[in-house]
Order: sequence, then C-alpha cells, then structure tokens
Amino acid sequence: MSNKEVIVREEILGSNKKVAAEIRGKLEAAGVLVVNLLSSPGSGKTTLLESLAEALRPAHQLAVIEGDIETERDADRIRRKGVPAWQITTGGACHLEAKMIGRLLPEIPAGTEFLFIENVGNLVCPAGYDLGENLRCVLLSAPEGDDKPKKYPKAFASADCLIFTKSDLIPHLPFDLEKAGNEALSLNPRLRVFVTSALKGGGIAELARYFVESRDHMIQRHA
Amino acid sequence: MSNKEVIVREEILGSNKKVAAEIRGKLEAAGVLVVNLLSSPGSGKTTLLESLAEALRPAHQLAVIEGDIETERDADRIRRKGVPAWQITTGGACHLEAKMIGRLLPEIPAGTEFLFIENVGNLVCPAGYDLGENLRCVLLSAPEGDDKPKKYPKAFASADCLIFTKSDLIPHLPFDLEKAGNEALSLNPRLRVFVTSALKGGGIAELARYFVESRDHMIQRHA
Repeated sequence: MSNKEVIVREEILGSNKKVAAEIRGKLEAAGVLVVNLLSSPGSGKTTLLESLAEALRPAHQLAVIEGDIETERDADRIRRKGVPAWQITTGGACHLEAKMIGRLLPEIPAGTEFLFIENVGNLVCPAGYDLGENLRCVLLSAPEGDDKPKKYPKAFASADCLIFTKSDLIPHLPFDLEKAGNEALSLNPRLRVFVTSALKGGGIAELARYFVESRDHMIQRHA
Repeated sequence: MSNKEVIVREEILGSNKKVAAEIRGKLEAAGVLVVNLLSSPGSGKTTLLESLAEALRPAHQLAVIEGDIETERDADRIRRKGVPAWQITTGGACHLEAKMIGRLLPEIPAGTEFLFIENVGNLVCPAGYDLGENLRCVLLSAPEGDDKPKKYPKAFASADCLIFTKSDLIPHLPFDLEKAGNEALSLNPRLRVFVTSALKGGGIAELARYFVESRDHMIQRHA
C-alpha cells in the first residue's frame, strides 16, 4: 500500500469505529444483541441463520441484515422464515461498514432482541471493520479445510466465537476438527467453539442458547 | 467509498495494469503461460495445483507463486511435489498485485512453461487486479453452493475458465451443478467449464490438456 492509501484507510477506519460505538450504545440500551457473522463465501452463513431463526422463534424476536456484493437472494431466504431482513448490496466492496448498518437502525422493529448481521462472504476485509456488534462469530465450514485459522489470522483473532459448519460432511473429508479448533484457540484463547450442521440440526440449540445467554448477560450489565 | 479513496484506488489500478502488461509481455516472449487462480478460501486451489503438478510433470516444467495473508504452508505443499514455489505473504492485504509478481520474475527458472499464481483466498478483491496472466481461472467448490456466480459476479465475469472442485462431494450436498454452470455462463458466455475432483482424480487430465493447448496457441501466435 502507498503512504497515501494508508492515510486514507486510517481515516476511514477511525470514523468507522466512532459510528460502530454509537450503534452499539443505542442497540445495547434498546436490549438488542448484535451478532456479526464472518466467513468465506459458501461457508453456510445464511443456512445457519435459517436454522437459528427456527431455534429462537417464536420465543424470541430477531432481525437480520444481509451483506452481499450483489443480489437480494439471502434476504429473501430469511424473509421466507418470517424474520424481518434487509439486504445491503455493496456493489463491489468486500465488507460492510458501520455507517451502512447505522442507516438501517430506524427500521429495526421495537422489541427486537437479536440483530444478526451477515457480512459479505470474505475472510479478510470484514475483520477490520467493527459494525457495532456485541459478538463477532467466524464460521469455518469443514470442506474449507483445517488449515484456515493461521492463514486468515485476523478473522479468528478478532472473533468471540468460532462456529464449525457442515460438520455432517466430515466423514467424507480430510478434515481434522481438533487440529482446526486448537489452531484457532492458539490465536485466540477466549474463543467459544461450536460444531454445527444446519442440514442435520447438530449444535444449533447450543448456539442459540449461547446467544440468549449473551443477551441476558448484556442486559444485566446495563440494569 | 469517499472521493479521495476512489481517486487513490484508480491511481493504484492504473499503475497495476501497466506492470501487469509488462509482465505478460516478458513471460509470453519467454514461452511461459501464466495462470491466475481465484477462489474463496478453502475451495481447493493448492490441492488442485498438487494434482496438476502430477498430471503435467515430468513432460512439462512448471512453477508456482502462492499468495496468502500469512504462512508458508501452501508453498511448502507445492515444493513437496518437486515444483519450484515462492510464497508471497501479504500481511493483511486481500489480493496480490502485479508488482509483487514482477519482483519474483528473475527467480523463475529458464525453461519454465507454466507459471501458476494462486491468489489470496477471496472472491472479491483479486478480481480487480490483473497480475499479467494469460488465463484467469475461478474455482467454485461444490460445498460453497450453486448460488455463488451472481453473488460474486466480477470474479466469474472476468475469468477465462471456471473450475468446479470437490465434485466428489456433490452426492452429499444440495448442489445443482447445471444451475451453477448456467448462471456463470449467463455472466460470461466465453467461460470454459471444468468439473474436477482432485481427491478422486476426476477432470484433472482435461484441465491439464486445456493449459497445454492454451500455451501451444500462445506460442503459435507469437511465432
């Protein structure tokens, strides 16, 4: 990167942090837990959200913001589960920024308890942008391989939770779950780790419980 | 993006194009076909290169440049196949640039026929950067899902060839190969499409033949 590019980038990141902190403050006060989901394209973020919608509703109210380069496909899938969803299409940019989330805040229904943000499918750029989330979760699908944490360290080091997805495929793959988990934990010992299969239902209830407990904890802290 | 960011980005892309054209000119004259491989993390770029090395050697000489955010892992895997390989670690940047390739040109052995460049695992940023390649190939692994072409249109629209990978997993997946192929072809009708399984060996010989024929064609054009 040129010096000029570095300076512009630092200005953008500084202003992003400020907007993110404002979003977090507003939504925490309103009792909304914000979860930012990061992963490669095709790791199963939307399918995981469909399963979480089924696990959390009707007891809990959720809303979803979908980030993609192009198309409304993911928001349409979430809406079919009866969950309010907004699609942000970045038209080329490889990550969401806090100001894009900020613009949608007036539309989040009162009573929403969980706001899930599905970032653009990318393990690199989104890791640098705080969106005002309380929890950042990185997904790693079994077919992507067990060597990914150290190759994309920032995504794993900056996350609160690691969600292995598509675990039903492990019997057909050269994938060592323990190795991948240990490598991620060596980058970030505070990671909570979940092993899920949205297709077969594995691990979804545990993950839903983690989000509910995290929200309870956030509300107690603010009481 | 801010106006300032757009201007800086245009300057960088302009200078990148110039360097890329110089690299292409030099390597074409030396009889080296350059292939730029783009995909998500974990789509199987390195495993495909290991299989291609076995299919092309010893009849043909190849060399590999590996791009990653961090770690020398991929270059080590290629070297174990007896192929000269260089690792570029970008330290955070989400794509390779032509000048990074340019710096390595003096190290490419005389007699090299194919230079494969494995870009950073990312379906977004690398699509904007010409590295001096003759062929750009985008990989889509079956587990990533059949809805990816329209969600990441630039990668598919700018490629010469589309390589489906991990096709051995299709029986275990909700993946419609024909749908994904047609969607990619609707973005880019000139795509050559290959269906491969590096693990089971499917499609590798056809792909190797495509590279050999493309190099023959390049050399005839320069003769």
